Amino acid sequence: MAPFRTARDPFVYYQRHIFFCLNERPNGEDSCAQHGAQAGFAHCKDRVKGERLAGPGGVRVNKAGCLDRCAGGPVAVVYPEGVWYTYVDKDDIDEIVDSHLKNGQVVERLVLPPNVGR
Amino acid sequence: MAPFRTARDPFVYYQRHIFFCLNERPNGEDSCAQHGAQAGFAHCKDRVKGERLAGPGGVRVNKAGCLDRCAGGPVAVVYPEGVWYTYVDKDDIDEIVDSHLKNGQVVERLVLPPNVGR
Repeated sequence: MAPFRTARDPFVYYQRHIFFCLNERPNGEDSCAQHGAQAGFAHCKDRVKGERLAGPGGVRVNKAGCLDRCAGGPVAVVYPEGVWYTYVDKDDIDEIVDSHLKNGQVVERLVLPPNVGR
Repeated sequence: MAPFRTARDPFVYYQRHIFFCLNERPNGEDSCAQHGAQAGFAHCKDRVKGERLAGPGGVRVNKAGCLDRCAGGPVAVVYPEGVWYTYVDKDDIDEIVDSHLKNGQVVERLVLPPNVGR
């Protein structure tokens, strides 16, 4: 599949690229991995595949190390928009897939407030 | 530090977010990890810290799983621009830091051609 093109971005290899923090801090410190991050990532990947959104010109669901916004964990970020999400369960992931990744509509209720950091 | 704001993106938590593929495929298959990805990531992180670019409103250097453009590995992608790079050594990383991450100038000679995939 050819890379996705828009006027804003002449070459965007993935139309939307979502990164899930799967970090596990040492010494048992609180981290995304302890709050269902792996399950959220796996469910998102399955859903994106199932919807046939996966691949160049479409959506990529990616593992990431610490995104350094641990206070809002588990977190994920969608680029190129730079929209950050916090999620609790599969329903949240479903909404991110159906609304944002598929149709470009930000899921406002899951957006991480801008002041949430480490 | 407050989140970086632009007219284009009202809330961009990191002005530039670079993800390094550090993936190691099973069974010894060719992958970014076998081509200096960890060293590139570590050098980039050190340089960004040294230049005091790191953090919210600035630059985040991130570990990532497979970015699925293995044929051009080792690869890294800078968002929100969606610019993909392939690099060989520390000099390449230095140029990405000094030119793109610090000053927003894409390093054309290191840009991954759009047709390079898995």
